[in-house]
Amino acid sequence: MTTTPDVLALLERELPGRVDTAAEALEAARTDRSGHRSPAAPLAVVRAGRVEDVQAACRIAHATRTPLVTRGAGTGLAGGAVAGAGEIVLDVRAMDRILEVSPADRVAVVEPGILNGALNARLAEHGLWWAPDPASKDISTVGGNIAMNAGGLLCAKYGVTREAVLGLDVVLADGTLLRLGHRTVKGVTGYDLTALLIGSEGTLGVIVGATLALRPLVRGAQVTLGGFFSDVVAAAAAAQSVTGAGHVPALMELMDEATLAAVRAYVGPELGAALPERGAFLLVQADGAGAAEDGAAMAALMEAAGGAVTATADPREAEALMALRRSAFPALEALGTPLVEDVAVPRSRMAEMFARIREIEARTGVAIPTSAHAGDGNLHPVLVFGSAGEVGGEAGTAIPEAVWEAAGELFAAGLELGGTLTGEHGVGLLKRAFLRDELGEAQHALQERIKAVFDPHGILNPGKMFTPDAA
Amino acid sequence: MTTTPDVLALLERELPGRVDTAAEALEAARTDRSGHRSPAAPLAVVRAGRVEDVQAACRIAHATRTPLVTRGAGTGLAGGAVAGAGEIVLDVRAMDRILEVSPADRVAVVEPGILNGALNARLAEHGLWWAPDPASKDISTVGGNIAMNAGGLLCAKYGVTREAVLGLDVVLADGTLLRLGHRTVKGVTGYDLTALLIGSEGTLGVIVGATLALRPLVRGAQVTLGGFFSDVVAAAAAAQSVTGAGHVPALMELMDEATLAAVRAYVGPELGAALPERGAFLLVQADGAGAAEDGAAMAALMEAAGGAVTATADPREAEALMALRRSAFPALEALGTPLVEDVAVPRSRMAEMFARIREIEARTGVAIPTSAHAGDGNLHPVLVFGSAGEVGGEAGTAIPEAVWEAAGELFAAGLELGGTLTGEHGVGLLKRAFLRDELGEAQHALQERIKAVFDPHGILNPGKMFTPDAA
Repeated sequence: MTTTPDVLALLERELPGRVDTAAEALEAARTDRSGHRSPAAPLAVVRAGRVEDVQAACRIAHATRTPLVTRGAGTGLAGGAVAGAGEIVLDVRAMDRILEVSPADRVAVVEPGILNGALNARLAEHGLWWAPDPASKDISTVGGNIAMNAGGLLCAKYGVTREAVLGLDVVLADGTLLRLGHRTVKGVTGYDLTALLIGSEGTLGVIVGATLALRPLVRGAQVTLGGFFSDVVAAAAAAQSVTGAGHVPALMELMDEATLAAVRAYVGPELGAALPERGAFLLVQADGAGAAEDGAAMAALMEAAGGAVTATADPREAEALMALRRSAFPALEALGTPLVEDVAVPRSRMAEMFARIREIEARTGVAIPTSAHAGDGNLHPVLVFGSAGEVGGEAGTAIPEAVWEAAGELFAAGLELGGTLTGEHGVGLLKRAFLRDELGEAQHALQERIKAVFDPHGILNPGKMFTPDAA
Repeated sequence: MTTTPDVLALLERELPGRVDTAAEALEAARTDRSGHRSPAAPLAVVRAGRVEDVQAACRIAHATRTPLVTRGAGTGLAGGAVAGAGEIVLDVRAMDRILEVSPADRVAVVEPGILNGALNARLAEHGLWWAPDPASKDISTVGGNIAMNAGGLLCAKYGVTREAVLGLDVVLADGTLLRLGHRTVKGVTGYDLTALLIGSEGTLGVIVGATLALRPLVRGAQVTLGGFFSDVVAAAAAAQSVTGAGHVPALMELMDEATLAAVRAYVGPELGAALPERGAFLLVQADGAGAAEDGAAMAALMEAAGGAVTATADPREAEALMALRRSAFPALEALGTPLVEDVAVPRSRMAEMFARIREIEARTGVAIPTSAHAGDGNLHPVLVFGSAGEVGGEAGTAIPEAVWEAAGELFAAGLELGGTLTGEHGVGLLKRAFLRDELGEAQHALQERIKAVFDPHGILNPGKMFTPDAA
C-alpha cells in the first residue's frame, strides 16, 4: 500500500492543476443533503475536466488501493457522495458539456456534470424534454440523477431515469473506458450493463458520458386539481380511486395533516387563510391531448371520495396549488431538523403505510409528517427532531437514538407491506445497514460478487450501499 | 464429470414423471424459429411444473456439469432455445399460471410459461394491458419475452419488455431461488438485477416468476393511416418527418418495394388490385385521447412527403391496412427460405441503412426485402434463399455461404451507422460470432465475468450469446 503523501504526489504529477487540497474544498466534500458528515476530511478533490482526467484518477486509485468517491453537485439525500479520511474525491461537475442534441433521433449526448434543469432549458428550444424530474432538478446533475436512478413527481406517467438513458460511457476502477448501451431506441446485444450501472451509486464505475432518450414536450393545456380531504386516509382513498379508474395523471401528490399544517404556518396568514383549518391535501395534474376530459373525470372521483376540489387550467392558479406542494420541505425545515425518508409500497398499501407511520410516531415520540408521490406509492416520511438549522451535524451523533429507531421501524413496515427501502433516493450510507433485510442473504452476496467483477480492489465508493467488511 | 446415464438416472429419481426422453420430444428441442437445428438430439426434456422442479433440475445440472437449456414455446428467432447433444432441456411451458392480477397496484404476477396473448386476454377483462407486443405474441411465452427483452410494433410509444417488468423470481445455476426487484412502481435498493436478467437469454438464471407492470387499456378510437410512396427512401423520409414534428405514433411500420410486391402477389389478384403497382408502404396508427387530431396532422405530413394516404377510424378498414403488414412475413416465406435479420439504427440513419441493404443485395446476389419498425429504427431485412419451406435445415449447412456473407455485411453496416446487431430478437446462436464487434473486447470480457458470477460452471445455455471457449 502506498502511503498518503505518495498518492497526493501521484495525483499532482498526473493531473497538474486539477488537484484541490484547500481546506474548504475538502470540507465541502464531507457532506451532502442527507445530513451526514464524515468524521474527517478526504485526501484531495480532483476536479476532472475531461474523460482522460477521470481515467488517470482511477488508475492511480486502483494502483494505490485508494478509495475514490465520485461527486457531482452533492445534492444526494442518502450520503452517497460523502467522502472521508484517506479518500480521493473525483468531482465531475466541470464536465458539463452538452455534446449533441439530435431532434431527429430524439437523443442528447451529454457529460455527467450538466445540471438537469440547465439541460432541459436547452432541450426546450428544440421542443424536447428529458423526463427525469427529481425535486432537486435545478441543482442536481444528470450524472447524479443516473447514478441514483432518480425519480421525482412524474414517474407514474413518464418513468424513472432508467427508462430515459440509452447508453453510458463509463470509466472502470482500473481506468478502462467502456461504451455501454446504444443510441437506438431498441437494442438487445449482450447484457444490459447500462441498466446495471443506473442506480449503482458510484460503486461500479464512473459515468463520464450519457446518451439520453428524449420526449417531445407535452403539448396543450394542463389541468391542475387541488383536493382538500378530512384526513390522509380519505385523501389516499381518493388517489386510489383515481388510479383504479384507469387514469394516469402526470402527477399526483399527497400531503398528510401534519405536513399541510406546517405549510399553512409557513406560507403566512394571508395565503394560509385560503387553506382549511385541518385535513390532508391531494394535488393532481392531467396533461396532454385528453387533459380537459381526464381532469374533469378525476375531479369528479375526488369529490365522490369526499374532497373539496379546485380545478383549474389557468397557469397562475395552478402555480398557487403547486406552490403548496413545493413548500412542504421548507415548511418542515422551519420546525426542526428533517431526516427525509423514502419508502415505497404498492399503491394499494399506501393507506396502511400511513397508519403504520402514525403508530411509529406514537411509539417513538418522533414527529413524522409525510408526503407521498401517490401515483407510484412512494412516501417521504420526514422525521423531524431538534431545532431548525441543524442539518449537516456529525454523522450518527446529531441524530437522536429515537429517530434512528423510528427510521428502522419505518423500513421494516415498508418491507412488511411488500415495499422497498428506497423508492428514489438510494441506499448510500443511510440505509446500507438494512440492505440485507430487503435483498436477502443470497442476493446480497451475489450483488457483492458483481461489485467485485467491476472493482476488484473495492476502491469505488467503499462503504456506500454495502456495509464495510467487518475486518 | 458424471456420465450421461448417471445424469438421466438422477433426473428421473429427483423428478419422477417429469423427464421426457421420447424421440419426438428431443427432436422438437433441436430447433426454434431461427432456422437453426442442432447437430444432435439433447439428453432429455424436463417438463417443470413448479419452482421446485426447476431447482432440482438446476442442482443436478450444476453438480454434474451438464448444460441446461431453458425453453418456453420455442418461437425464438436467434437460436437461443436450441438444444443439442448432452444437454438437458428445461421446458417451463407448463408453468403457465396467472397467480394474481391486481388492478389497484396495476401489476400481474405470473409464471413464465403463460402465453403473452393468453395473459392479455385475461387482463383485458380488468381493462388492463401488458404492453410488450412481439409479432409472436399469440404463440410466445411471457418468460421467453422477458428472456429476450422482446420488442414489437408498439415500442416507440409503449416501451420494450424491460420497462414492463418490476420483479423476477429466478433460479440460479446451483438451484438457489432469488426474488429480484419489487412490486412497487419505483425502487432503487441495490443493483438492478431485474434489468440485468431481462434479455439475458437463459444464460444467467431460469425465470420462474414475474411481477409485471401493467397499463390501462388505451381508450377511444384509433386512427390508422396507410401511405403509399414511390420508393422506400420517400417512405422513410415521411416517417422521419412525422417523428421530427414531435409525434409519437402508437405504431409506424415501413415496407420496402420488394416486400410490398411480395405482399401484392401473396394476397391474390382481388385484394392486390387495391395496391399500387410499385412503391413502398408506410402504416401509421394514432391512439389515445388525441388520436383524431394527431392522425390528421400525421396524414398531412405524409402527403406533404409525397404519399397517397388513406386515413380511417373504421376498425374494418384499419384491419385491412394492418393485414398488409401482417402478410409481409408469410408472403416472403412463399418466395423461399427467409432468414429474418434484426438490425436497429438511429432513426435518422434509416434511409442510409436501406441504401446499404440495396448495395449488399447487388454485391452478394441475395434478395433482401426489408420491413422496419420505423418509429424506432429497427429494420428486419429478410434474406431469402432456396425455395419455400426449407426452414429448420441443419444449422450452418442449409444456409448458403452468400447468405452468411450478406448477413455479416448487414451487421457491419448497422454498426457503422451507429446501430446495433439486434433490436429485439437477441443474439442466441445467430449473432454470437459478432458480439465482440459491437461490445468491444473490454466489455465482452466484463460480460463473461458477470456470467461466471451467476453460473460458475457455465452450465446455463452454453454457447448462446457468447462463442464457446476455443478449448
